[in-house]
Amino acid sequence: MTTLRIPHADDVLEASRTLAGVAVETPVLRSEWLDRLTGARVYVKCENLQRTGAFKFRGAFNCLSRLDRTAYPGGVVAYSTGNHGQAIATVGKMLDIPATIVMPNDAPAVKITKARENGAKIVLYDRSRQSREEIAAQIAAQSPVDMIPPGDHPLVIAGQGTAAAEGLKQIGASGVTTILVPCGGGGLAAGTCLATEALNASAEVWAVEPEAFDDTKRSIASGTRERNALLSGSLCDALLAPTPAELPFAINRKRLSRVLTVSDRDVLRAIRFAYDELRLVTEPGGVIALASLLSQSDVVRGKRVLVIVSGGNVDPAVFKQALDIDVGAGPIDHAA
Amino acid sequence: MTTLRIPHADDVLEASRTLAGVAVETPVLRSEWLDRLTGARVYVKCENLQRTGAFKFRGAFNCLSRLDRTAYPGGVVAYSTGNHGQAIATVGKMLDIPATIVMPNDAPAVKITKARENGAKIVLYDRSRQSREEIAAQIAAQSPVDMIPPGDHPLVIAGQGTAAAEGLKQIGASGVTTILVPCGGGGLAAGTCLATEALNASAEVWAVEPEAFDDTKRSIASGTRERNALLSGSLCDALLAPTPAELPFAINRKRLSRVLTVSDRDVLRAIRFAYDELRLVTEPGGVIALASLLSQSDVVRGKRVLVIVSGGNVDPAVFKQALDIDVGAGPIDHAA
Repeated sequence: MTTLRIPHADDVLEASRTLAGVAVETPVLRSEWLDRLTGARVYVKCENLQRTGAFKFRGAFNCLSRLDRTAYPGGVVAYSTGNHGQAIATVGKMLDIPATIVMPNDAPAVKITKARENGAKIVLYDRSRQSREEIAAQIAAQSPVDMIPPGDHPLVIAGQGTAAAEGLKQIGASGVTTILVPCGGGGLAAGTCLATEALNASAEVWAVEPEAFDDTKRSIASGTRERNALLSGSLCDALLAPTPAELPFAINRKRLSRVLTVSDRDVLRAIRFAYDELRLVTEPGGVIALASLLSQSDVVRGKRVLVIVSGGNVDPAVFKQALDIDVGAGPIDHAA
Repeated sequence: MTTLRIPHADDVLEASRTLAGVAVETPVLRSEWLDRLTGARVYVKCENLQRTGAFKFRGAFNCLSRLDRTAYPGGVVAYSTGNHGQAIATVGKMLDIPATIVMPNDAPAVKITKARENGAKIVLYDRSRQSREEIAAQIAAQSPVDMIPPGDHPLVIAGQGTAAAEGLKQIGASGVTTILVPCGGGGLAAGTCLATEALNASAEVWAVEPEAFDDTKRSIASGTRERNALLSGSLCDALLAPTPAELPFAINRKRLSRVLTVSDRDVLRAIRFAYDELRLVTEPGGVIALASLLSQSDVVRGKRVLVIVSGGNVDPAVFKQALDIDVGAGPIDHAA
């Protein structure tokens, strides 16, 4: 396994070069209604339109394209709540690298199916009883494969940082005061912090977590990596890491300016907003930063905000819950 | 009313300049699965991500930004199956031009509401009994307003053509053999024909119509503008013009290479495909060209195809029909 050095800002710039012409340059969308609600100027970076439907493609490609194939003829193994696994499977297929993915058995069926169809070997586990890290480590110990964690890898973090770097370039780095990103293990948040440094941007980075899974918020407060009381139970399946990943946390504890939390109900309302107003399919964990702007609309008043919508792989049953929301009763009323 | 001269290729280039920095430069997305299914290289131009959720913004802005306000102090009146009306309402608000919109009473509620919220005056009519052209003409005769038809206007046609022009520039004009566009009155198709000429592109333009509303197909065959037997009854509410509009048809009859038709069932399957594979919210009439590639996958084999997804304003009830499709039974199976 690659040495766990903390990545630098330059690693994001190098990752951007690696991903040029490979990753989708995802669009930045605007909504007059969103600006009016928040009293801010908001730019929505659509990483749900990225290959594999999530920003995770960036970290996976940046990492696997530099795999030492002689040292790891068996390819790679990854543990993932879904999108990272799917990205590793897809990139593995692109680069002809065998991939084994350890996924929780309650991950959306669509994510499991897609990874399988990319030729990956899938190992399912029970999120409430088993440790995904241990299962993946066991596989890595028994065969010549490299373990690619979703956050604890410098090349993965640097790759994730290219989403914000691209967004800052599209808008103009000086035009952004605040970047909001979804936060599970913290890889995207950490990469985003490095991206601002790489582009000499003064923007603050804010992370957004599900209400009952605010491990990063509590960890930053206490200075040590705290665990969540629950291991499952939020709609935001992509953000249920039990504790902040080590490397991202080393960056996030110093660089994150703020951590917000959002309820599942407000996440569903944000999925509906993205459907009505942006015509985007978003997943709960992917839309949570946007959800924070809708549910706590005063927090960014007067600011110029880049908000990353990080993924769009969502089971139809969940999407239908959002479509069933009565938009006549709340703030989404006027977005229709 | 502006004289009905037939627009030229240069009008598209001028419209592109007018829309620069105003319209969204919508992304072009790729799908490995779609390429595999069709045996083609397919680029999906996402005009559902355009302002107002449809390409109609382009024609509306191009037209209204040149309105003679001295001659028409009362602003504009438009008749529309929905997206054109919404675009006129939005642009009217942007440019401070009063707008009256004549809409069918069976248009999706979301479209009627949005136009109203943009400050437009809405006049509803019964699609099966009344003529929208006559109602709008009556309003135009009674007050100092200019009538902006959805297709029969050179500045509207030229504006719509900027979508394909932009797509051709993004991909490289020489890299496209075939452009597929949804077809109702024919304005987008006509504008697209002019766009290829403007960029010296050799790409053929193919129009795609709903099965029971194939007036353009029959009109090209007979050489005269034919009418549809039905005035309503397809999910593709945006494409139910009773007959090809005059100006677009004058262009399309000479320039269109082919017209395909698609069933409502296949349109719903395409909405589901766009949800699963592209993470886009699309409306029936907007996704029909993409639907033709999915349902008649052999028609573009070996070609390099630009397909325009033209709109994403869809009632939740219709979208849920697409989400309820059993994707295990058909070709979408492998897209999941």
